[in-house]
Amino acid sequence: MRMMVINPNTTMSMTDSIGRAARAAVGPDVRVEAVSPGMGPVSIEGHYDEVLASVGVVDEVRRGEACGVDAFVIACFGDPGLQAARELASGPVVGVAEAAFRAAGFAGRSFAIVTTLGRTLGRARDLVAEYGCERQCVAYRACEVPVLGLEDDEGDAYMALEAECDDVLRSTDADAIVLGCAGMAKLCGRLADHLAVPVIDGVAAGAAFAEGLVRIGMHTGKRREFARPIAKPVRGLLSGFSLEELPGGRRRN
Amino acid sequence: MRMMVINPNTTMSMTDSIGRAARAAVGPDVRVEAVSPGMGPVSIEGHYDEVLASVGVVDEVRRGEACGVDAFVIACFGDPGLQAARELASGPVVGVAEAAFRAAGFAGRSFAIVTTLGRTLGRARDLVAEYGCERQCVAYRACEVPVLGLEDDEGDAYMALEAECDDVLRSTDADAIVLGCAGMAKLCGRLADHLAVPVIDGVAAGAAFAEGLVRIGMHTGKRREFARPIAKPVRGLLSGFSLEELPGGRRRN
Amino acid sequence: MRMMVINPNTTMSMTDSIGRAARAAVGPDVRVEAVSPGMGPVSIEGHYDEVLASVGVVDEVRRGEACGVDAFVIACFGDPGLQAARELASGPVVGVAEAAFRAAGFAGRSFAIVTTLGRTLGRARDLVAEYGCERQCVAYRACEVPVLGLEDDEGDAYMALEAECDDVLRSTDADAIVLGCAGMAKLCGRLADHLAVPVIDGVAAGAAFAEGLVRIGMHTGKRREFARPIAKPVRGLLSGFSLEELPGGRRRN
Amino acid sequence: MRMMVINPNTTMSMTDSIGRAARAAVGPDVRVEAVSPGMGPVSIEGHYDEVLASVGVVDEVRRGEACGVDAFVIACFGDPGLQAARELASGPVVGVAEAAFRAAGFAGRSFAIVTTLGRTLGRARDLVAEYGCERQCVAYRACEVPVLGLEDDEGDAYMALEAECDDVLRSTDADAIVLGCAGMAKLCGRLADHLAVPVIDGVAAGAAFAEGLVRIGMHTGKRREFARPIAKPVRGLLSGFSLEELPGGRRRN
Amino acid sequence: MRMMVINPNTTMSMTDSIGRAARAAVGPDVRVEAVSPGMGPVSIEGHYDEVLASVGVVDEVRRGEACGVDAFVIACFGDPGLQAARELASGPVVGVAEAAFRAAGFAGRSFAIVTTLGRTLGRARDLVAEYGCERQCVAYRACEVPVLGLEDDEGDAYMALEAECDDVLRSTDADAIVLGCAGMAKLCGRLADHLAVPVIDGVAAGAAFAEGLVRIGMHTGKRREFARPIAKPVRGLLSGFSLEELPGGRRRN
Amino acid sequence: MRMMVINPNTTMSMTDSIGRAARAAVGPDVRVEAVSPGMGPVSIEGHYDEVLASVGVVDEVRRGEACGVDAFVIACFGDPGLQAARELASGPVVGVAEAAFRAAGFAGRSFAIVTTLGRTLGRARDLVAEYGCERQCVAYRACEVPVLGLEDDEGDAYMALEAECDDVLRSTDADAIVLGCAGMAKLCGRLADHLAVPVIDGVAAGAAFAEGLVRIGMHTGKRREFARPIAKPVRGLLSGFSLEELPGGRRRN
Repeated sequence: MRMMVINPNTTMSMTDSIGRAARAAVGPDVRVEAVSPGMGPVSIEGHYDEVLASVGVVDEVRRGEACGVDAFVIACFGDPGLQAARELASGPVVGVAEAAFRAAGFAGRSFAIVTTLGRTLGRARDLVAEYGCERQCVAYRACEVPVLGLEDDEGDAYMALEAECDDVLRSTDADAIVLGCAGMAKLCGRLADHLAVPVIDGVAAGAAFAEGLVRIGMHTGKRREFARPIAKPVRGLLSGFSLEELPGGRRRN
Repeated sequence: MRMMVINPNTTMSMTDSIGRAARAAVGPDVRVEAVSPGMGPVSIEGHYDEVLASVGVVDEVRRGEACGVDAFVIACFGDPGLQAARELASGPVVGVAEAAFRAAGFAGRSFAIVTTLGRTLGRARDLVAEYGCERQCVAYRACEVPVLGLEDDEGDAYMALEAECDDVLRSTDADAIVLGCAGMAKLCGRLADHLAVPVIDGVAAGAAFAEGLVRIGMHTGKRREFARPIAKPVRGLLSGFSLEELPGGRRRN
Repeated sequence: MRMMVINPNTTMSMTDSIGRAARAAVGPDVRVEAVSPGMGPVSIEGHYDEVLASVGVVDEVRRGEACGVDAFVIACFGDPGLQAARELASGPVVGVAEAAFRAAGFAGRSFAIVTTLGRTLGRARDLVAEYGCERQCVAYRACEVPVLGLEDDEGDAYMALEAECDDVLRSTDADAIVLGCAGMAKLCGRLADHLAVPVIDGVAAGAAFAEGLVRIGMHTGKRREFARPIAKPVRGLLSGFSLEELPGGRRRN
Repeated sequence: MRMMVINPNTTMSMTDSIGRAARAAVGPDVRVEAVSPGMGPVSIEGHYDEVLASVGVVDEVRRGEACGVDAFVIACFGDPGLQAARELASGPVVGVAEAAFRAAGFAGRSFAIVTTLGRTLGRARDLVAEYGCERQCVAYRACEVPVLGLEDDEGDAYMALEAECDDVLRSTDADAIVLGCAGMAKLCGRLADHLAVPVIDGVAAGAAFAEGLVRIGMHTGKRREFARPIAKPVRGLLSGFSLEELPGGRRRN
Repeated sequence: MRMMVINPNTTMSMTDSIGRAARAAVGPDVRVEAVSPGMGPVSIEGHYDEVLASVGVVDEVRRGEACGVDAFVIACFGDPGLQAARELASGPVVGVAEAAFRAAGFAGRSFAIVTTLGRTLGRARDLVAEYGCERQCVAYRACEVPVLGLEDDEGDAYMALEAECDDVLRSTDADAIVLGCAGMAKLCGRLADHLAVPVIDGVAAGAAFAEGLVRIGMHTGKRREFARPIAKPVRGLLSGFSLEELPGGRRRN
Repeated sequence: MRMMVINPNTTMSMTDSIGRAARAAVGPDVRVEAVSPGMGPVSIEGHYDEVLASVGVVDEVRRGEACGVDAFVIACFGDPGLQAARELASGPVVGVAEAAFRAAGFAGRSFAIVTTLGRTLGRARDLVAEYGCERQCVAYRACEVPVLGLEDDEGDAYMALEAECDDVLRSTDADAIVLGCAGMAKLCGRLADHLAVPVIDGVAAGAAFAEGLVRIGMHTGKRREFARPIAKPVRGLLSGFSLEELPGGRRRN
């Protein structure tokens, strides 16, 4: 089984730690390729960043699809480009926010999201609503460490994150913590040991669920909304993204 | 990894087919034990049946917990006894309705449930609401084949199920079909081939996700609602269900 | 009119106080029988307890139905076995949580639930959602007195409960308090005098509403989901719960 | 116990039939006074009518409150003036839509509303949302008989209503029918006999629940939103509605 | 373009400031008539006041409709009589609460309502739900200044309002403040300067949106719920509100 | 007042008709610039197209912001890039879907969306949910004319659209029709004449509301989620989108 784990930002050190987290979550017969797009912002901390990063995500999915990848994991907590990726891919596409929320659902009634910058919590709220988790998510918290702060100064970042988690557990009944950034994957184990509640890293959850989906033969339903994108010209800087008609107009359902 | 897959009714032929579906969904290092309780109704087709079956489920979970089982799958679409099982078990407990809805979520925007008897659709509605899937579930259908009809006359049952699925795909935009009974596991492949849309058997999905949860070290959060049940006397016919204090009062978080 | 008020746990002192609360809530032509099942846990403080207690509830409902009882009240705040009881009974079945929420609805915009142990608040949340009261219920509180603490030490229990109620009224605009345990029925009057807001005991509300439902000829709709359970074998310890076909297969709508 | 049942329109024949339905729903110790305001439209079939009728409702509640009425029932399916009445009254105030929805909730999972004119269904939708019944109400239907058509030609009105009810039961799984106009009270019994499902007349339900609420000592919470209206001048045509300060500024909680 | 801005209470100084706020919000070709009904309470601070004020609103709308007014703004935060006004008017009718919520929606994710008396927040909650803004509205606050306090002592009222706004911005992430009373229109600019976040006065928003609606030819859909009220007798004090059949029974869609 | 109306696709004939619709909706003192990005797909009919088009939208907003544009309208029914545009712009940014839904809200209780291709209805559902309109939107319909079919063959496109609108009005109570594609702006008048219900073109609504927002001094709240994007490197093909620190780090609230 070939699984492509896409870090939507262009910071390779984060791609590496995401790859490690994904590999630890899957069986020995799964080949995990952790990649970063060749274009896009170095970190994703707002809607503008996400617009730009989404282009890189669909670029990688097109490439992976051409190579016969069996499943894709989009390893940024905003699930950027997820719906477009589902149009493009034959196999399942898993966003790490969706995966983390589902893991939390299997682990109890409620969870708290703890993320990097507070300005990204709006996107978290959108996803919680989209995935039907408004009753489950009982707190939205930020430790106010920038995404690249997780790379540059892991020790300080960990302490800020731990403090925020301790506080949210004191003030709510949350059964679990959901980490709100794929870059936190490497801090998950230490945090779980300290907090003694389930701490969910969406990268691990996403990789594990993607493996399961492939094993049961699941893929995106392609009969309507998520059918292959309609072939049409794309102009200017993005002209390389033009899609051509499939020969015979066939598509996999 | 040891996984106990519990068929909550007491019909062993169904337990066998459920076991086969679960085994096909997991990796080679997972040992699946498919079991039925020693007590309870032969099929579950209403709330009364579910009250009775839930006792058998918690009985099996207690037994499995004592034997060091790593994960539990409750293989009845009503997810009977799921919350109680989460109190009892150290590892993850997955209900097949929750698992099927999550697989469907990864496969597109919307799904239709197709089940056995129409009178069970109320329970399906309760679960759809509980799991936050009211926007996703676009149709509730029944082929009006009783649960044991799936055992007794597989051919006729298949034809009725296929006809209902064909109809729901004609009249809605559902991206996927969710099978509303664990006894339908054995019909899933043939149906998927015919319909050319994702058809989701919760048993396979539940086993695959349970494996993934164990692999990423996930378990039920035990700090409050799902802590081990409080030790107390249980009287009369059910006195065997009395729990005793753990020595030292310790519990795993 | 014969009304059976079922205390789902097996603690008779609580059954007695529940019976007194129910009798005070109904007219002189209503004969209230307060009963406890012959099996089950001595108190209900979690999902495991509730699975076990539900069996006792359906056992009592079968017994009452055979004796021509006109209405049933299930006197535990988790409304255990309520849907199964509605399948079994010809007349109305009222859960005390549903009744309390409805009384609160007639009394204003919002209420706060104050219950025994915090671990039971998850069940309260489930019921609030099921009964459509998410906008109404503005606080979930626990005084952390165990259910049997209400029996053993009424004075201390009252003080803890009063303190929690005082606090919730200070910090919210709740129009009313809903008591989250049938065992609190006996404390309701004193609390209402102290707090000077409506304090709702579900037992009283349930008995009063059940009387009203019988008077207007209301019963559970039996055309589909809540039709009499399908006759089928039940095995093992619970074999006494097997139902037989009604002669002629008739059922009341 | 004194109960005032207010028909918010000014058609006395409807007031009479509403009074009969209410009296049949309560115990012998309840004195039901069925009244109509001295001002307002002859029927309520839209928002304009409701604005005008609400003034009459609050006028009657003020009068009843001055006479020591114990409970009020507002007998129009739009629950006109209900919140204002709760500010004015010391005892409980029950709207017949709220009462009908609650009776339906005790009778099963789902109901269908069948009313007079289709243009009033918008108000029904508002009330269903306000009372948290969006999952319960599975159909909104109108037989397109005007309200006064129920008075003028009972036979034809009945046939149109029956036909609509038959149709909605064929096309949905509704457990019960809720009659969408207080003027239909007199048709309820015949309809229930014909349909063999629970048919709910809000007038009967409202009177029965109001009696129950008084019996358990329930009233509107008066600590904030529903405190007595603030005394202030009212000008012009409505100057008779000016309220004066209570001596001592006291209010009942 | 003729726009009638209706202050539903009968305090003319407030009508004047409302008129000024509306005029500042529209283009030079819009003629704003700010009016007060000839009947009704001097301020609206609860449900009773609102019932009475709604009659005055529909009276003004009838008058304006007869004079060929192009659009109506109802300038009280409870949007009293809005649905009835939409039945009566040919052109668009805008309530200031709806307008304020929509302006807030265009300005970000979330807003906080800051109003006069806490007892009016229930009405605010009803409107937030009706207009689908439950996710957007993150706080409901009252500065506990009565409506006429805004007229009598503008300086003190401003200070109380500012303090409440400061506090809500400290304790939430609200992107904007919605002023919860039309009488606050005159304080909006000073408050926006102080707070440095968008502060929304519904009167300005309502007038601006009403102008836009007229410019694009929008009006209330009249095919069903909001068709012209049915002609019928109105009795007693309100007999002047009887509507007559339009000649030919025609109505504008 | 300068208003930039952005057609997110790269088909100039559509940009022209959008510009005409916007100009007709605003006052004489508003200068409307209708633009298309220099990059991106020729039409937007799915999630992949939208990812690509969003980049062009933010490019135009950056350009407009640098030129002192007062307000932006994003003239594609998917509101692509709206949140990112709100981060970038000082003044208000209005999406035509949001604008159309709000105009519909002012025009009655309910609306039906009629769009081009059925595969785009998923995006419409997401926006309906995001904007809190799930109760309002009673039908989602597609006439199955591709977006560029509106340009190439206006006559046939109109007939297909009219047929779908006729059908949805026959089968629902919708008060208004919302056109689900900015390219339909030019068909709006003819359709409204035919249907005799309000037909809402989001382009006109968006331009009118944007003008109103500027007139009342409204802009996006910039204190947190919608603050200016954080300056950071963007790599590869999109490196031109890197933002630099503002001198002094100042931002407008």
